[in-house]
Amino acid sequence: MNPSPRTVGILAGMGPAAGVDFVRLFVGACEAWLREHGQPVLDQAYPEHWMAQLPIPDRTRALTDPAAPQPLEAMLRGLNQLTALGAVAVAIPCNTAHAWHAALQERVPQVELLHIASETAAEIRRLGHPRVALLATQGTYDTGLYDEAFAAQGIECVLPGDEARIWLMQGIYDGVKAGDMRLAEQRFTQVAQQLRATHGDIALVMACTEIPLALPQAPEARDWTLVDPSAILAAALAARAYGQP
Amino acid sequence: MNPSPRTVGILAGMGPAAGVDFVRLFVGACEAWLREHGQPVLDQAYPEHWMAQLPIPDRTRALTDPAAPQPLEAMLRGLNQLTALGAVAVAIPCNTAHAWHAALQERVPQVELLHIASETAAEIRRLGHPRVALLATQGTYDTGLYDEAFAAQGIECVLPGDEARIWLMQGIYDGVKAGDMRLAEQRFTQVAQQLRATHGDIALVMACTEIPLALPQAPEARDWTLVDPSAILAAALAARAYGQP
Repeated sequence: MNPSPRTVGILAGMGPAAGVDFVRLFVGACEAWLREHGQPVLDQAYPEHWMAQLPIPDRTRALTDPAAPQPLEAMLRGLNQLTALGAVAVAIPCNTAHAWHAALQERVPQVELLHIASETAAEIRRLGHPRVALLATQGTYDTGLYDEAFAAQGIECVLPGDEARIWLMQGIYDGVKAGDMRLAEQRFTQVAQQLRATHGDIALVMACTEIPLALPQAPEARDWTLVDPSAILAAALAARAYGQP
Repeated sequence: MNPSPRTVGILAGMGPAAGVDFVRLFVGACEAWLREHGQPVLDQAYPEHWMAQLPIPDRTRALTDPAAPQPLEAMLRGLNQLTALGAVAVAIPCNTAHAWHAALQERVPQVELLHIASETAAEIRRLGHPRVALLATQGTYDTGLYDEAFAAQGIECVLPGDEARIWLMQGIYDGVKAGDMRLAEQRFTQVAQQLRATHGDIALVMACTEIPLALPQAPEARDWTLVDPSAILAAALAARAYGQP
């Protein structure tokens, strides 16, 4: 057996269903790591991990309205608590929340706060997609979260138009967050079909953690190339727990 | 809107996949609570909840071999940490771990530690099943975890025979915990079919948190009456968070 894996944290609740999906992906990534490294898959072989699901103010709203409740203090409180519990690395399963990544990392330098866009861009490069389409919240588009990470890896990125962005927000808020998965699937599929009509069989990056809760279940999506940043972030967190940079 | 819900905790990792399933059930129970109470389903309407997935020594082994590593200290550490984070109630998604329920509750009296068997027995009575079959680990059978709770509710309980108990342990350990879901489904189904052959259409209580990860997926199980103590415990924890005793 390897030395004990290290404790890691998940700062979540944005929304809660996406947090659940992320910890599922993380446990799956740990199991995959154990198999790849020829270690027995036992309860005790998994890293200690803590998930905080906190009622954090809406991220897109905070970005588009400076008078709205801001999420930084609540996220900072959770990050400090996870660090106090011994987490050496923390992942945030919410793309839009990464607008505060630098502020959080600066205020809590003793923990490694993973960055979903950097991890995703590196993985897309490994997968060999030269061009992708980004499906995200208005908050993520506004902050250009993925721009720098994609540019650093030489990945070209296309964005949906204004109408399709409204469909995405409807699918995320009136769909997944409100528990209406049929609406979510329908809206996300509409956007994907429009992008594919223009750009052909382009890889679709589901860059809001609510999107993979509905889009992959659509029958039309069976033959599409979907990239899930949550799954990539989960694998990155598992690698940190088992001692890989 | 109601006053803010209270913080609750989940002491898990026994095994990690069961912890993931439990937090999924908990988030679902919160969503159901919000709908039943006519409240909007928003990220911020969910209670703050913390899940600790800790590498806790095997519970059944500890019960059957006093020389084996014991789980009490690791569970106690987690329970104290969850309490320090503000949890007013904590659930443990592992039936066998409840052998240490009294010891934990006595040492940490300031938190309400839910009891999976008490919650399950009360719900079975509400459902109106006069007689059930208990599917569990050898550790849970040895400690008679459900005996008192069922007796208190006037529920008759039948147990599988020695051979079927070996199949259950194989399904739990070589199946779910080791990631072989086909083996798990096959073993659990065998046990259920044997019980149904003897006792007819009896309600099957899946009293190990690994069993609901495989048995309900079996095609044969479609028409069986399955009771999931994890789901009952998750609903009880949601009720505590929203302020119901």
